[in-house]
Amino acid sequence: MAIVRQKIERADPAVIDALARAGVATVHEAQGRTGCLAAHIRPIYSGAQVAGSAVTISAPPGDNWMIHVAIEQLQAGDILVLAPTSPCDNGYFGDLLATSAQARGCRGLVIDAGVRDIRDLTSMGFPVWSRAISVQGTVKETPGSVNVPIVCAGQAIDAGDVIVADDDGVVVVKRDEAKAVLQNAQVRLDAEEAKRKRLAAGELGLDIYDMRGRLADKGLKYV
Amino acid sequence: MAIVRQKIERADPAVIDALARAGVATVHEAQGRTGCLAAHIRPIYSGAQVAGSAVTISAPPGDNWMIHVAIEQLQAGDILVLAPTSPCDNGYFGDLLATSAQARGCRGLVIDAGVRDIRDLTSMGFPVWSRAISVQGTVKETPGSVNVPIVCAGQAIDAGDVIVADDDGVVVVKRDEAKAVLQNAQVRLDAEEAKRKRLAAGELGLDIYDMRGRLADKGLKYV
Amino acid sequence: MAIVRQKIERADPAVIDALARAGVATVHEAQGRTGCLAAHIRPIYSGAQVAGSAVTISAPPGDNWMIHVAIEQLQAGDILVLAPTSPCDNGYFGDLLATSAQARGCRGLVIDAGVRDIRDLTSMGFPVWSRAISVQGTVKETPGSVNVPIVCAGQAIDAGDVIVADDDGVVVVKRDEAKAVLQNAQVRLDAEEAKRKRLAAGELGLDIYDMRGRLADKGLKYV
Amino acid sequence: MAIVRQKIERADPAVIDALARAGVATVHEAQGRTGCLAAHIRPIYSGAQVAGSAVTISAPPGDNWMIHVAIEQLQAGDILVLAPTSPCDNGYFGDLLATSAQARGCRGLVIDAGVRDIRDLTSMGFPVWSRAISVQGTVKETPGSVNVPIVCAGQAIDAGDVIVADDDGVVVVKRDEAKAVLQNAQVRLDAEEAKRKRLAAGELGLDIYDMRGRLADKGLKYV
Amino acid sequence: MAIVRQKIERADPAVIDALARAGVATVHEAQGRTGCLAAHIRPIYSGAQVAGSAVTISAPPGDNWMIHVAIEQLQAGDILVLAPTSPCDNGYFGDLLATSAQARGCRGLVIDAGVRDIRDLTSMGFPVWSRAISVQGTVKETPGSVNVPIVCAGQAIDAGDVIVADDDGVVVVKRDEAKAVLQNAQVRLDAEEAKRKRLAAGELGLDIYDMRGRLADKGLKYV
Amino acid sequence: MAIVRQKIERADPAVIDALARAGVATVHEAQGRTGCLAAHIRPIYSGAQVAGSAVTISAPPGDNWMIHVAIEQLQAGDILVLAPTSPCDNGYFGDLLATSAQARGCRGLVIDAGVRDIRDLTSMGFPVWSRAISVQGTVKETPGSVNVPIVCAGQAIDAGDVIVADDDGVVVVKRDEAKAVLQNAQVRLDAEEAKRKRLAAGELGLDIYDMRGRLADKGLKYV
Repeated sequence: MAIVRQKIERADPAVIDALARAGVATVHEAQGRTGCLAAHIRPIYSGAQVAGSAVTISAPPGDNWMIHVAIEQLQAGDILVLAPTSPCDNGYFGDLLATSAQARGCRGLVIDAGVRDIRDLTSMGFPVWSRAISVQGTVKETPGSVNVPIVCAGQAIDAGDVIVADDDGVVVVKRDEAKAVLQNAQVRLDAEEAKRKRLAAGELGLDIYDMRGRLADKGLKYV
Repeated sequence: MAIVRQKIERADPAVIDALARAGVATVHEAQGRTGCLAAHIRPIYSGAQVAGSAVTISAPPGDNWMIHVAIEQLQAGDILVLAPTSPCDNGYFGDLLATSAQARGCRGLVIDAGVRDIRDLTSMGFPVWSRAISVQGTVKETPGSVNVPIVCAGQAIDAGDVIVADDDGVVVVKRDEAKAVLQNAQVRLDAEEAKRKRLAAGELGLDIYDMRGRLADKGLKYV
Repeated sequence: MAIVRQKIERADPAVIDALARAGVATVHEAQGRTGCLAAHIRPIYSGAQVAGSAVTISAPPGDNWMIHVAIEQLQAGDILVLAPTSPCDNGYFGDLLATSAQARGCRGLVIDAGVRDIRDLTSMGFPVWSRAISVQGTVKETPGSVNVPIVCAGQAIDAGDVIVADDDGVVVVKRDEAKAVLQNAQVRLDAEEAKRKRLAAGELGLDIYDMRGRLADKGLKYV
Repeated sequence: MAIVRQKIERADPAVIDALARAGVATVHEAQGRTGCLAAHIRPIYSGAQVAGSAVTISAPPGDNWMIHVAIEQLQAGDILVLAPTSPCDNGYFGDLLATSAQARGCRGLVIDAGVRDIRDLTSMGFPVWSRAISVQGTVKETPGSVNVPIVCAGQAIDAGDVIVADDDGVVVVKRDEAKAVLQNAQVRLDAEEAKRKRLAAGELGLDIYDMRGRLADKGLKYV
Repeated sequence: MAIVRQKIERADPAVIDALARAGVATVHEAQGRTGCLAAHIRPIYSGAQVAGSAVTISAPPGDNWMIHVAIEQLQAGDILVLAPTSPCDNGYFGDLLATSAQARGCRGLVIDAGVRDIRDLTSMGFPVWSRAISVQGTVKETPGSVNVPIVCAGQAIDAGDVIVADDDGVVVVKRDEAKAVLQNAQVRLDAEEAKRKRLAAGELGLDIYDMRGRLADKGLKYV
Repeated sequence: MAIVRQKIERADPAVIDALARAGVATVHEAQGRTGCLAAHIRPIYSGAQVAGSAVTISAPPGDNWMIHVAIEQLQAGDILVLAPTSPCDNGYFGDLLATSAQARGCRGLVIDAGVRDIRDLTSMGFPVWSRAISVQGTVKETPGSVNVPIVCAGQAIDAGDVIVADDDGVVVVKRDEAKAVLQNAQVRLDAEEAKRKRLAAGELGLDIYDMRGRLADKGLKYV
């Protein structure tokens, strides 16, 4: 049950970078309001906005051994994504592992567990989205798996899927849908820009989106 | 059951602005330690300190339609206050709605649910106090109500009540008590200033508040 | 049941200060991965890194009377540590109490409950690690105890134990182990520095720590 | 701020008893899907199904003094409803208070806090719906209020409102709507009985409620 | 995005029934300690022990429309499995839907949300494993999907996977592994029976499993 | 750091058995409202009421190896008490371990983690008080300690302390205070019996405890 898949497919780097610029909220809408990880996954510092290919890790509770294994599988532009096999807040990851991951071009970590060395990670500019901040240390006793399908914070993630993360949280885009999602996202961004101007000028969404009739049909009464 | 009350009473704008300056902790004490929303309601960025008249929204879980309706009811100086009819973390509100609300003079949003576009809201200076940050999108299918009495994060709030919010959280002041609460708050602020000086000089609260006798009466022993 | 122990032993100030510089994660590892408080205890602002001798407070839920009593027991370099006798999020502590504690040389507060006046505490540079931020006020009706053994956020703490706190959270070091823990911490810090350089240069933890054989023995397969 | 309202209006006893027989789910639907208390309020034993007039209690965290005061206000057929002024799991209520309340005809307790003596309460047949079971004792130091408006588990409740409680949880019916809600409930119960027979015979809700066209209009595809 | 897959593969009925008899804990171990749903999923009454083929439902928060659609897809021996697209405690399911599902041979429901009509479901013998019990009603406004891959309570589930549920919770077995898992389970059950006798006779696990040497090697000291 | 203390002191068996009969709520009050474990610790079935000497276990998250070690240390009348070194819901304990513990006279288990095989444990009459019910299996890789001081669900517990547990939860009595606590408990039980009769006859607590004057002094007003 403990395996490392060494060869994974990744999406087009240009698409990945464009998804990062679009941001989590837009990408999530562009793929039909799916794919966002649970709201308990929060950035350890604000302002980071990244996208990358998922190198997935399935690890036992309180055991961070597989992060060392996963780092060897990293390519520049990847993001580590770790799901414990049962709920755990322990600090799986700190500044030494971040140094190693960063040396291999890793863009960040998404983890449904805890991390530590927050001050160092912040000053290194290595972004992490986690469930908890905890110094509670881990052991290296039980292997898990790398680049297998995982469920992380409520979303099924395959190795090579595109992870987009910013101050709003994290969304996963299936690898083979990345290009289409980006196109939708671009359409949304263009439309939003026009709407933003009209709203800023004082026009109402009720009128821009022509909602008054449908609201009345559904029984809304003004008193 | 889906109604919009178009005419609400508001408190005196000068009183509202003075309550903002007093801050949440002082206002809460000034009205007898009542009115504070549950501690899970947190600001999306730090440093904002505002007060305004509540425009209340009762909305279904996962449905943000009524925010568009509520925005039309806003007057300059108002604060939107949304309670879902059952617990929900979805991101009901983002930068487009904030642009529209801000265009109408809205001072912020208090929501017992989620918001998104955190980076944009921060750069716009549109403060939000929320239960969660989540990109999970919402639908526009079921009307709710605007300016009806709601329960938000454990407090009963009527349209036109004064909402005060800062880094400590959110407190509601009943509209017709706003002036009296402000007077109490001013008395507290003056008294606190005097105490702060004595405490900073090393005097003990035990002596300033004359607590030693009562502690002994209640059985406190020094060993 | 309500007592104040007036005389407590403290660790060597030089050791305490050196533990502060080592930081929470390193100290926690240096004492065998024990002593860290639960992850729900978080700093109210980032960047503080302190250590001090615990002045412990056992207080009823919603009653902050004993903080006044505890402040009289403070010596320069101490940290207040409060555990409610049952779970409580109320705001036990604000800027006036911080002013008083700071006047006596107190370095901070660790509290498994709530605090308020966040903006003031931040501008005063008085760090707090708490379970919640809440303005909900407290009463002064029921005595508790000061400098008795308490359980705070899952850790047993005696008066005079060393508290180390930073952005990662809080760890407690037993008073009579402080010196030995510091020595271990120093060894770790030196070793980490060397490893950091090798990892930054691209070497893998798998090789530095010689993990490949043991992973294979435990059944890890590369595919 | 500490008052006891001694005279409250109650709904018609026959209406109250009929609402008990209708049950929580039906009553909740009959009043437009409103009024149900949060799902964390659970019965301490299963099988009880009651309704009664609310005698409301607002009490400090960890202080059960006002329950004694409220018991004097009870009439036969009433239900005690307690909301702490801030979140608290303490055991406010046990077999002695239940004996006293039962002696005055009280039908049960709804409490957004803890209770104890579960075995005794069960054998006495005194039903309780609570947030927690906890032996943690309380003090009698700070008065609260009786028969004032409260917010309990997310619902605004006035003294004299009708409380309906069963294995599904608790719903509140505003006193002056009780009769109309009962009529709606009766209509629902009759309609449900007919539907139950058709569904039991294998007919589909898709056909009984004529949903196929509307689902297709909204884009549902069969593949 | 809203689809109903009408044709799904199911595992061998004899294998499914044998997995039910093996029970959740044994099946979970037999497939390498994987597949168990999060511990917040609990049975509404105790004593049920079932297995069946998953008919999966992805539904919006607070919208139970797709349950009607899914019921048409049921075959005798199936179990409904519903995951909301974002966290929701609402009562999606009650006695009428259970009557309809039971009429089509459905063996139960697993739902990462709420249910109601607990007393009726219990007397009907229709078992449910849920996150919450709540009467809060739902709407029928937005289609979801049936028999698509879902993530329910942290596990990825495909239509036709085998669901095993009892008082311990719920485990999912991938359809094409069901037979092999059953064989492992049978081996475990046989081995457990022998061990149970030795343990009941007072032999120690330390000796039966020959653990003393390995514990000493790992540093365990008796004092 | 991994040790087994083989020799522990226990309280007088007659005192322990009498504490079991007094029950958790009475014992908790009799020792000054201290010692009760957090309310998240619940019995897996109702009706059990036991007391015993604590054999304590400190175990890593997701690793149940030390339970085997602890069972060898059991004497008739003991209760196992396990605290994981960081939060964990895994199922550490099931019917085989219960068979082994029961064979050695163990009266039950208190565990701030998960258990499984609920149906078997119930039919064996082996009571457990736990944080969770979960089948998620554990490993046997990392030693912990037996009969060391632990913190379990917020209470500091030493080996040999008396554990009392019933439907209300769990309370710990320090070994050397057990006799005195029992005497207080007996006094309470006698007094309660007299009060119960008066309350059942309709007398009010307000009068029995002579509260009216003190309530008026504290400002309670009847309106």
